[in-house]
Amino acid sequence: MKQFMDENFLLKTKTAQILYHDYAKDAMIYDYHCHLIPQEIAENKRFTTITDAWLGGDHYKWRVMRANGVDEALVTGKNADPFDKFVAWADTLERAMGNPLYHWTHLELQRYFSITEPLNKRSARAIYDEANRQFKESEALSVKGIMKQFKVYAVGTTDDPADDLAWHKNIAGQKDFPSKIIPSYRPDKALNIEKDDFAAYIEKLAASAQMDIASASDVVSALIKRLEFFVSMGCKASDHALVSSVAVFKSEAEVNAIFAKKMEGTPLTEEEVEAYKTFVLTALARAYTKYDIAMQLHFAAIRDNNGRMFAALGPDTGYDATHDTNLAAKLSAFLNNLSLTGEVPKTILYSLNPKDYYTLATLMGCYQDGRPGKMQLGSAWWFADHKDGMEEQIQLLANTGLLSRFVGMLTDSRSFLSYPRHEYFRRILCNIWGGWAENGEIPYDLELLGGFVRDISFNNAKAYFEG
Amino acid sequence: MKQFMDENFLLKTKTAQILYHDYAKDAMIYDYHCHLIPQEIAENKRFTTITDAWLGGDHYKWRVMRANGVDEALVTGKNADPFDKFVAWADTLERAMGNPLYHWTHLELQRYFSITEPLNKRSARAIYDEANRQFKESEALSVKGIMKQFKVYAVGTTDDPADDLAWHKNIAGQKDFPSKIIPSYRPDKALNIEKDDFAAYIEKLAASAQMDIASASDVVSALIKRLEFFVSMGCKASDHALVSSVAVFKSEAEVNAIFAKKMEGTPLTEEEVEAYKTFVLTALARAYTKYDIAMQLHFAAIRDNNGRMFAALGPDTGYDATHDTNLAAKLSAFLNNLSLTGEVPKTILYSLNPKDYYTLATLMGCYQDGRPGKMQLGSAWWFADHKDGMEEQIQLLANTGLLSRFVGMLTDSRSFLSYPRHEYFRRILCNIWGGWAENGEIPYDLELLGGFVRDISFNNAKAYFEG
Amino acid sequence: MKQFMDENFLLKTKTAQILYHDYAKDAMIYDYHCHLIPQEIAENKRFTTITDAWLGGDHYKWRVMRANGVDEALVTGKNADPFDKFVAWADTLERAMGNPLYHWTHLELQRYFSITEPLNKRSARAIYDEANRQFKESEALSVKGIMKQFKVYAVGTTDDPADDLAWHKNIAGQKDFPSKIIPSYRPDKALNIEKDDFAAYIEKLAASAQMDIASASDVVSALIKRLEFFVSMGCKASDHALVSSVAVFKSEAEVNAIFAKKMEGTPLTEEEVEAYKTFVLTALARAYTKYDIAMQLHFAAIRDNNGRMFAALGPDTGYDATHDTNLAAKLSAFLNNLSLTGEVPKTILYSLNPKDYYTLATLMGCYQDGRPGKMQLGSAWWFADHKDGMEEQIQLLANTGLLSRFVGMLTDSRSFLSYPRHEYFRRILCNIWGGWAENGEIPYDLELLGGFVRDISFNNAKAYFEG
Repeated sequence: MKQFMDENFLLKTKTAQILYHDYAKDAMIYDYHCHLIPQEIAENKRFTTITDAWLGGDHYKWRVMRANGVDEALVTGKNADPFDKFVAWADTLERAMGNPLYHWTHLELQRYFSITEPLNKRSARAIYDEANRQFKESEALSVKGIMKQFKVYAVGTTDDPADDLAWHKNIAGQKDFPSKIIPSYRPDKALNIEKDDFAAYIEKLAASAQMDIASASDVVSALIKRLEFFVSMGCKASDHALVSSVAVFKSEAEVNAIFAKKMEGTPLTEEEVEAYKTFVLTALARAYTKYDIAMQLHFAAIRDNNGRMFAALGPDTGYDATHDTNLAAKLSAFLNNLSLTGEVPKTILYSLNPKDYYTLATLMGCYQDGRPGKMQLGSAWWFADHKDGMEEQIQLLANTGLLSRFVGMLTDSRSFLSYPRHEYFRRILCNIWGGWAENGEIPYDLELLGGFVRDISFNNAKAYFEG
Repeated sequence: MKQFMDENFLLKTKTAQILYHDYAKDAMIYDYHCHLIPQEIAENKRFTTITDAWLGGDHYKWRVMRANGVDEALVTGKNADPFDKFVAWADTLERAMGNPLYHWTHLELQRYFSITEPLNKRSARAIYDEANRQFKESEALSVKGIMKQFKVYAVGTTDDPADDLAWHKNIAGQKDFPSKIIPSYRPDKALNIEKDDFAAYIEKLAASAQMDIASASDVVSALIKRLEFFVSMGCKASDHALVSSVAVFKSEAEVNAIFAKKMEGTPLTEEEVEAYKTFVLTALARAYTKYDIAMQLHFAAIRDNNGRMFAALGPDTGYDATHDTNLAAKLSAFLNNLSLTGEVPKTILYSLNPKDYYTLATLMGCYQDGRPGKMQLGSAWWFADHKDGMEEQIQLLANTGLLSRFVGMLTDSRSFLSYPRHEYFRRILCNIWGGWAENGEIPYDLELLGGFVRDISFNNAKAYFEG
Repeated sequence: MKQFMDENFLLKTKTAQILYHDYAKDAMIYDYHCHLIPQEIAENKRFTTITDAWLGGDHYKWRVMRANGVDEALVTGKNADPFDKFVAWADTLERAMGNPLYHWTHLELQRYFSITEPLNKRSARAIYDEANRQFKESEALSVKGIMKQFKVYAVGTTDDPADDLAWHKNIAGQKDFPSKIIPSYRPDKALNIEKDDFAAYIEKLAASAQMDIASASDVVSALIKRLEFFVSMGCKASDHALVSSVAVFKSEAEVNAIFAKKMEGTPLTEEEVEAYKTFVLTALARAYTKYDIAMQLHFAAIRDNNGRMFAALGPDTGYDATHDTNLAAKLSAFLNNLSLTGEVPKTILYSLNPKDYYTLATLMGCYQDGRPGKMQLGSAWWFADHKDGMEEQIQLLANTGLLSRFVGMLTDSRSFLSYPRHEYFRRILCNIWGGWAENGEIPYDLELLGGFVRDISFNNAKAYFEG
């Protein structure tokens, strides 16, 4: 029997252990997609309590607390005692065995605080006090300290095109900052013409681009101006949240008419909305190709499913879920259209629904050309980002393409305490490679396999985004 | 090598064995959803032959016999010799290794009859004679004997709202009955306005509710009257069979017009049918909230796919299959609407198609509040109710929520010989927990893990349904 | 640790090893569905280089080469040096660990050339020279030599109804040919009324059937005439490529009007296209029943997704992918309609999307009658034809039906070097059965289990098709 989460956690074979400890463990981190707040990075934020760090904004944790029957006051309430919240979380966590939060939380306790004891109601007091003490006393738990400790080579934040990237400039000006903090271009608001706040956003975009926006064509021009600014600031990737792909192709004139209709306040049909999105996304994809920006497409989230709680707490508070649309036909049409002119950018396809992996992995294979791993099946995402889900994504990618070219893990996180998720991924990855070798399914060539593991842990991502 | 289906069947690790034998095995059974016939329970039915008990109504077995090329006369024929049928079944069973029927059948032979020999054509005669002898001689094989032996704390039958529950009354009056026999409320016929027999059913419902039904509003009133009667009889759960969720929201007046149109004999559009169903199901869900009745929604069956055999044998004779509709959008709309007024009842979501698990498990997470495990991902159902399917459901639930709060297994069965399916589930469950502990993925704390296992085996269900 | 791909490759238990070596290994091969070119068979083709044999037409390999960033000139280019191509492939292959091509390629090196060294850039020269030497010198590497060595009892080619089957006649006339070469009937072109070349094809079909075709009814008559000819030539199976099933039922007169409309050059609606296909496929299915021809339905491919490469290279060059349509409703309607008159032929259902397996496996169970395993879930296909995919298909079939009645593996290949895929399948199959036995899930009865394994390897297919 293995000890609870010891140094060989998740590493079932000797070969897996060697691959992890000798090749993967010390690789740097290229966290190319996350939701860290640039200001907090720039200001080298320090947390005051573990409650703040863990429960301040993490809707993963909120969801399981609610599933455990915890009163909302102890989940997101503003007035609850931080320790009471922590105990509610500790008690929930013990009930969450089997959930990735159980592993993530204990990896965080081990790696950030050197605490190896399981967290539960009984141990909550001591762990709370010790973690808070360390937050107060240890420079290693500042943002800079954390990034240094975890060898974070680069971080890709998620930024609106209208953002002035002032905090990124600030960070770039800090001589001793241990990591690259790279803006990523996420123009969802410019695409979501169906939303009520679209017109207001367009005004904001116009201001940032210092031009008037009177048409969909102008939207594209403004977006590309902003993309060029982002590129000048080191941007390597874009990101789009879509239910499924968009593929209603209409002429520029038609799309401009749709835009005008919206700005007049007339509701659009679903087809008109999709035509506008197709037009803008196509123009952006071509610009991504021109500037060699990776296009990330995130599919299959259904959001804000609880109207009452949305009214109370707003978006991103734990009320999203996995959608189940059909992706193949539209995604093929969208990418095929780009392929006709050789303008499919390097692309990472994510779906929140693992049932889509076969479609994404095989469809992306139709646009591979020119560079290794140009088209990528994104790492298991959000609700699928657990041990079984990561194994499923890795196996599927291996079975249908080239695992060795995979750009690997990203945290997608809002928390500075999430870097052990790279460790978690690497352990799972090494366990798969080690298992293959020990089963005689691949040659036992440690240097070769170690090289693949190191590539997937860091080198591939660096080459992909910077290459 | 392990012996065939011995005491450590399916328990691969020592810890799994301890968890099963010391914690799960002796837990009582809360079989909250099944299709037992109340009259047979009340009359303490005794079977005359094993052919009658096994092949009298079990369409699972009929299907594999047909797949094995057995003539229909030996499957459902009324005139075939019971022993000939039994031999056809025994011969098929040997060919069914890998199918859950193989395990279920041998667990039943072991637990009900103490027969450990594999059933096949060669052993059929001896087993047939021995089982029949025991049916004749052993009081333990009466319904009461069975329920006592298997520690059946409660059974939830499946009952039409128009049912007078006379047999439930009868059972409640039996002083020595070893189990609670609880009616469950299944108003499918009141929702299926598209069916030819709808008007006839409405008459029946009106009679049972002792009121006139002249509108959809009246349907709701009658249904709620009957629900109140069911509640007075101990009802804890409802049940609905739906292809996917319904989410066409129309006003009461509009829905009453749809009802009137149907009663005049005019065919309804699909949208009208769905509007009616949405109206009634929403009203019922609110009533379930009021009376704290669990709402079970069963999705994704496609029924009666063989018209010729339907004409010959009717429904539920082995001609149903797994549907593949998209569930997320409508289910979100339906539950979201209830959430606006805080009226989402405690709910168990089942799908016959495991591709829906991510959607169900994550969407239900958006309505968790107020009590532990309020929203439940139903146990692997029907065609998915096998070892791999149960593991998949358990792992998915663990990965996306709180396995420790799971209400666990139900037989969904028409047979008194199905109780070993709880054992089967518990073995699989313990094997998963034991594997995690031995892999160092969770602490090795037998009391704690044993408690979880016991909760999932029985305590959670009891708390969930009885409050 | 096991040696790389030794004699017990993929066989994890002793029982699996016994089942494979003593029962499965030496069974003959019934390769009932492939894309071998009859002329090459008849002429006993000999390859000149391993580049020609491996990279001449294999779009599986082309895809991973592109994913590895190999220039298209070295993938499909006509002017590249064969050795340069081979090195590009060898280098890609080493990067393809985890992909089935890695195993297939090394099985082929071992079984055809007795080369056990891993192929990579370093070993490419020696392996290239040795393989080419053997192609030149060894009679065993002619088509006849290969079929003899691999005990190929029968091969089902894929043929157009308008084909005169001249090469099949030629082969049938060769006294010493070691295998049956059986035509299979694939009338896709007669169904694809939406295609531009439909009218031209109808002319070709009319000529082959020696009749005029002026209506959809005539199409059916001509197709049945050609089917009868195919039957006279030993045909045992048909094959249809469909995105999903078709189920728009219209009268013969209506369908004839649709046909006339198409022949006049008027574009058809989607519904008209489907009505025509439903009409023709239904008529063919009835004819298959009459002549006891197996109907193979291949669902869920989305083809030609890269317009630029389609223009350059044409179809079947590595630009297809997995579709994600919903199958259940239409497939049920189509088969149910046939069931009404007892005319569901023996049928093999394939989907390129494993998410469809539950639907296919359970729906087919609704039409099982009359003979063992009449309805079959087809072996894991194309992008799903890897170790994990085969395990998934086998487990799903076992869990929902009778694995012991499975007709088993087919290569679906364009290459004479693909026969080790049967070995690959058999190893996976034996590993599953052996695992069950060693886990005590089935009795340890080697003769019985060995019989099942042998049935699935060969006997079932022979009985199914020759019957």
